[in-house]
Amino acid sequence: MNIPKTSFPRVVIIGGGFAGLAAAKGLKNQEIQVVLIDKHNYHTFQPLLYQVATGGLEPDSIAYPLRKVIKNLPNFYFRLTEVLKMDSEKRKIHTTIGELKYNYLIIATGSKTNYFGNTNIEKYSMAMKNVPQSLNLRSLIIENFEDALLTKSFEKRNALMNFIIVGGGPTGVELAGALAEMKKGILPKDYPDLDIRQMQINIIQGSNRLLKAMSEKASEKAEDFLINLGVNIYKNAHVTDYDGYTISTNADLSFEAATVIWAAGVKGATINGLNNECVVERTERIKVDTFNKVKNHKNIFAIGDVACMDISGFPKGHPMMAQPAIQQGIHVAKNLIAELNNKEQKPFKYVDKGAMATIGRNKAVVDLKKIRFQGVFAWFVWMFVHLFSLIGFRNKTVVFFNWVYNYIRFDRETRLIIRPFKKRNKESF
Amino acid sequence: MNIPKTSFPRVVIIGGGFAGLAAAKGLKNQEIQVVLIDKHNYHTFQPLLYQVATGGLEPDSIAYPLRKVIKNLPNFYFRLTEVLKMDSEKRKIHTTIGELKYNYLIIATGSKTNYFGNTNIEKYSMAMKNVPQSLNLRSLIIENFEDALLTKSFEKRNALMNFIIVGGGPTGVELAGALAEMKKGILPKDYPDLDIRQMQINIIQGSNRLLKAMSEKASEKAEDFLINLGVNIYKNAHVTDYDGYTISTNADLSFEAATVIWAAGVKGATINGLNNECVVERTERIKVDTFNKVKNHKNIFAIGDVACMDISGFPKGHPMMAQPAIQQGIHVAKNLIAELNNKEQKPFKYVDKGAMATIGRNKAVVDLKKIRFQGVFAWFVWMFVHLFSLIGFRNKTVVFFNWVYNYIRFDRETRLIIRPFKKRNKESF
Repeated sequence: MNIPKTSFPRVVIIGGGFAGLAAAKGLKNQEIQVVLIDKHNYHTFQPLLYQVATGGLEPDSIAYPLRKVIKNLPNFYFRLTEVLKMDSEKRKIHTTIGELKYNYLIIATGSKTNYFGNTNIEKYSMAMKNVPQSLNLRSLIIENFEDALLTKSFEKRNALMNFIIVGGGPTGVELAGALAEMKKGILPKDYPDLDIRQMQINIIQGSNRLLKAMSEKASEKAEDFLINLGVNIYKNAHVTDYDGYTISTNADLSFEAATVIWAAGVKGATINGLNNECVVERTERIKVDTFNKVKNHKNIFAIGDVACMDISGFPKGHPMMAQPAIQQGIHVAKNLIAELNNKEQKPFKYVDKGAMATIGRNKAVVDLKKIRFQGVFAWFVWMFVHLFSLIGFRNKTVVFFNWVYNYIRFDRETRLIIRPFKKRNKESF
Repeated sequence: MNIPKTSFPRVVIIGGGFAGLAAAKGLKNQEIQVVLIDKHNYHTFQPLLYQVATGGLEPDSIAYPLRKVIKNLPNFYFRLTEVLKMDSEKRKIHTTIGELKYNYLIIATGSKTNYFGNTNIEKYSMAMKNVPQSLNLRSLIIENFEDALLTKSFEKRNALMNFIIVGGGPTGVELAGALAEMKKGILPKDYPDLDIRQMQINIIQGSNRLLKAMSEKASEKAEDFLINLGVNIYKNAHVTDYDGYTISTNADLSFEAATVIWAAGVKGATINGLNNECVVERTERIKVDTFNKVKNHKNIFAIGDVACMDISGFPKGHPMMAQPAIQQGIHVAKNLIAELNNKEQKPFKYVDKGAMATIGRNKAVVDLKKIRFQGVFAWFVWMFVHLFSLIGFRNKTVVFFNWVYNYIRFDRETRLIIRPFKKRNKESF
């Protein structure tokens, strides 16, 4: 892979998400060689992907070039590649561009969509875990309306204008809100010859409330907001199949829709070659101790979504969100530096900074440690926190301007079909 | 195609570029049904595509949704499709989504890259005529440097860092300037382990000067600017072949390069079904009279790049640029309205507003009717004119901010690989 050999220990970080970047930044100015690996050449700010999908933001403003992050840092290297396999005995990884030896390995590969083995759903539904997927979804939404204009079949038009979001977590809720805003502000103007009232936005949630990781008050308010925006919410129902046209559930409930967005589950994006006993079943996260060390491996760490820490209070591991990822990244870098300097390492302690979700214009729900609030103020807090968390002054400014513009103009202007995409069951349409 | 029938005459406009949009806008508030057809759902501001390709701008800010242009205009319809064939006898067009009858047809299909029949060059070289192509080029530029890091072969590394621009018109000159700025400002920081001095930027120009549609002074200055930026200029040479690795020319000159950008010629994007005698050989533009009417067709017009008007002073038709396109679009709308109201139609007269090209930071050349200037002031004029010409307040603001940011920070931040792309001769790399 053409990384120079030095006398410094080599730390390989797989993944430039929240966790991987935090770890990389924590290792700077040390006598350590750091190799950051990612299959994209940019960091993705995942919490705003739904706005890229719904035409509110351009992808460039929620992403940040990884090479720019490590620019000017001596002994830092970036490689654009995918890891095929790891070999913990020989302390090396195999990638699409060759092998690489490591002294320490930090696995920060994040999570991927979990279809729970349902290949039909995987084939026909849309996911929204990265920039290309979001652009695909954006294209599909627009193509649906373009196609709805053309069909003479009332049923097919209905199916083209029917959006099923499976999963009522933050992603599902925020996407449903954004689609509802499109339905109100943009689509009637863009498609005056369609009856946009036919457009349906549905959330199917497995449990008995939305945002179940948040407070009951937040769930309740989020539900109110969504219902006011015209979103249909179906609780206690699991989607069992989707053939590209008909969605079946385990409840007395079925739909016909051209678009199913699968936000019902994620699993760890684990790495080939890791011993089975290190990986949790079903969620496929990597078992780590309180120092983020992978079971039975002294020099391998896992952080962020892919890591499942065995710790009291979090029987299933920390929530798969940005905050635990960032905190673990910072922490693992400190511990690694301590280890190299023969100093004491500290166990990871998660500081819960709360959770929030926005539902649409002026509407959000925020749970902080001591205080919970919903509505306009929560919406401002949501915007401030997300703006502040974006990497780079350019991105912050462009996103801020877009938000102000979209707010004042009731518009979402970045609705180009950049990646023409039809994920359709051709027999049905 | 599901367009309602009305008592109004139907005008079908094919193409939402400068010409088509100008014509559509000119027809508003009339007793006319207007159907605008394009294969993209957005208008592309082509003069800035090279900045998308070189990471200076996001694609969303130089494009504008076509549905937004015709929003709120009664009797205006947009269809996202490609025209397969026209049938002037039956007065209808065939598209991928069905047939459409017209009373008047305005062909504003623009131009496409002209490879002059060289299929090898078409296969391996890059073009830059639309957003997807620009994003492909952006991806290729970055992938080249990522690959250059990995190869142990000095020759292949050289080829990966060698950029050949064929054609010294505005596109070639502006792209060369932007690549040279990347070489100076960004690439040495992004790729500290590469010797960026190995990067070569070459323009191959068929005639004896660059920007041959502009004044000699402009050519001379553009050449000076480019040479100062380290660009190699080869004049009086024609590229004869490219196998994905070796470029041959008719002169005593050959190169090895992974990237050839073909900006050496365009031709009219004419429509199937038009009588051969209406189309100019070689440039494939459609012959029109001074009213933009297609030869022997009273109700078919051609405007913009695709139209070749037989008029004194322009033996080969008007230059294939934005200005003639916009002016013809405005004019054809006026004439059409006059025709429908039985009023007198006026022949088209081109008002030459001049030409300009930017070479890089603080460097541009401007030819106006009475005055010609080059340098910093020309650069400001270039920026002002381009900013002013963009459609939409959002686009203007985002582009302006990007320019200020890039200028102050010597940076181009939107360098994501959105459409991963390798147009390589695999045997060579």
